[in-house]
Amino acid sequence: MSRSSSPSGSGLHCPPPDTGSHSPRVLMGHGGGGLLTQQLIRRVFLAAFGATVQAETDAAIVSVPGDRQAFTTDSFVVRPLFFPGGSIGDLAINGTVNDLAMVGSMPRFLAASFVIEEGLPVAELQQIAHDMATAAAAAGVQIVAGDTKVVERGCGDGVYITTTGIGELRPGIALAASRVQLGDILLVSGTIGDHGMAILKVREDLGFEAAITSDTAALHGLTAAILTCCPKTRLLRDPTRGGLATCLAEIAEQTGRGLEIDEASVSVAPEVAAACELLGLDPWLVANEGKLVAIVPAEDAEAVLQSMRDHPLGQEAAMIGRVVDDHPGRVVATTPLGGRRLVPMPVGELLPRIC
Amino acid sequence: MSRSSSPSGSGLHCPPPDTGSHSPRVLMGHGGGGLLTQQLIRRVFLAAFGATVQAETDAAIVSVPGDRQAFTTDSFVVRPLFFPGGSIGDLAINGTVNDLAMVGSMPRFLAASFVIEEGLPVAELQQIAHDMATAAAAAGVQIVAGDTKVVERGCGDGVYITTTGIGELRPGIALAASRVQLGDILLVSGTIGDHGMAILKVREDLGFEAAITSDTAALHGLTAAILTCCPKTRLLRDPTRGGLATCLAEIAEQTGRGLEIDEASVSVAPEVAAACELLGLDPWLVANEGKLVAIVPAEDAEAVLQSMRDHPLGQEAAMIGRVVDDHPGRVVATTPLGGRRLVPMPVGELLPRIC
Repeated sequence: MSRSSSPSGSGLHCPPPDTGSHSPRVLMGHGGGGLLTQQLIRRVFLAAFGATVQAETDAAIVSVPGDRQAFTTDSFVVRPLFFPGGSIGDLAINGTVNDLAMVGSMPRFLAASFVIEEGLPVAELQQIAHDMATAAAAAGVQIVAGDTKVVERGCGDGVYITTTGIGELRPGIALAASRVQLGDILLVSGTIGDHGMAILKVREDLGFEAAITSDTAALHGLTAAILTCCPKTRLLRDPTRGGLATCLAEIAEQTGRGLEIDEASVSVAPEVAAACELLGLDPWLVANEGKLVAIVPAEDAEAVLQSMRDHPLGQEAAMIGRVVDDHPGRVVATTPLGGRRLVPMPVGELLPRIC
Repeated sequence: MSRSSSPSGSGLHCPPPDTGSHSPRVLMGHGGGGLLTQQLIRRVFLAAFGATVQAETDAAIVSVPGDRQAFTTDSFVVRPLFFPGGSIGDLAINGTVNDLAMVGSMPRFLAASFVIEEGLPVAELQQIAHDMATAAAAAGVQIVAGDTKVVERGCGDGVYITTTGIGELRPGIALAASRVQLGDILLVSGTIGDHGMAILKVREDLGFEAAITSDTAALHGLTAAILTCCPKTRLLRDPTRGGLATCLAEIAEQTGRGLEIDEASVSVAPEVAAACELLGLDPWLVANEGKLVAIVPAEDAEAVLQSMRDHPLGQEAAMIGRVVDDHPGRVVATTPLGGRRLVPMPVGELLPRIC
């Protein structure tokens, strides 16, 4: 059957109209797959990500050495899009880089997909893309593939970004819950609760002055230092959504081991602690975006601690506890006064849309 | 600094409360990263995807043979979530499988990330996950990684799904716009416009009775048949958002070659053509989700056509045009009466949120 008459048909030499191509805000038409979409991709994403994006084919071709690859995805819906210490762009890169790093891989390639709400200022999208490019360059990863969709006003909230990453697995490294053994030592790379409180402070317009900034950072360099120092490292995890408490509770559940944590050894920055006190929040439940938990054999713990402290992102690292015979599958915190307290996994949300 | 008092703290032997775990609708708490999130993942995603999902680690470990891999991502924001012939679940699998197939790879692993609007019935999410699992099994891909986020009512529209895939590249296949040569033949695998009109019909409650169903399908089997028949195939593309016209215009632009298309050879199902006439829409601009365009050397065109027609998804395949010396970078359609018409790339959206 032949083609119907085309409402957008034009003469052979009629150049395409330019409607909307310089709009200061994202239009529904930017998601239609036509010229406007191409222009948005060029103006925002290719301008920021440069030649690494393989925009002309349906799929990018990448080369990841080794028999096995690490593969992970995360959607980022943080509100607001910009906050002290970073933006959704930084988070979207660092979050996926960190998930790749936590399984002992070196992050190599990222794909980034955008669900944009109609009306988002193009300048904000450009800033976000710029932040992503900067974070990707810092993490040594290439953004090679992407997608852009636009939804109507009231069907989104600025922009949601999903990043998916492929990492190159280090030979000789096998991180797994099943490898955690009695007597192993737990370390944390620094203060906890910074990211979540930075978001909450800016979002809720809290009435205090203390500067709290997100700790968003790419941790692959720190994990490399740990794994180089101690190839027998059992497990690495980043305590993001749900905070340190959720991370520890998951480890206990997955390993079936008891974890005993010395409360006093877990650092919280004074301004974060003060804000938590004010709001009645537990910093152990507040999200981090640039911290990790490592579990290592006891005999290597001192050396790993030193290797972490020698890294810019681990200067405040500390040993916080150990794997014990008691209370299998549960986390117990010991207080400075000798008390013992179960650290449960939180049920629902503490802070929505923190990442 | 020691831990603040925990508002969710409880005694050592107090079991976690069960609030919300059997809610018939998705709650904000399902996105918090705690127990509710775990329960949603188990109840919906692990129940559907089974053991392929590596839910306990930050990143999945996959094994894709070869020196190079195909890698692609797409967000799906189709409205409504269910439509004649499929759902957002089918689309999210088939769309990414097809992008992998179009670069000549065999789709192997998928990651799926969900941005869910608070209030979505859990039963709908379960149906979508079921559709994804069925489509993934049919396409021979494993869903190995995922993420779940929840946004407030009015900040989403049911659910948005981003899928990202890794494919195994076939040795000896090199599909690229730069390989398209003068005299090459263009083929299309079947009727066009089915998916977009199926969505539009159900969305706009159009006043006609004809059954129009989406053509959503995984095309990796059809691409395998084409590439086996003709390893020298130049280019494969699936004409999704923006339809056949956008696909052809992009090919012309990227190759710098002129494309001459015989209008009469492009099939449109009678009910789709009738609906397009009624609405003043051009079926060449309407999205497809289970069709492909192939460009092959002229000497192989007949054999490729036969190999396509021998496949269930290519029974109505046709040669539709060729690569010409004239009008480089542009697509010209020749009409049955001998007329010639430029096929421009559409500017903005024809139909929003079609995929």
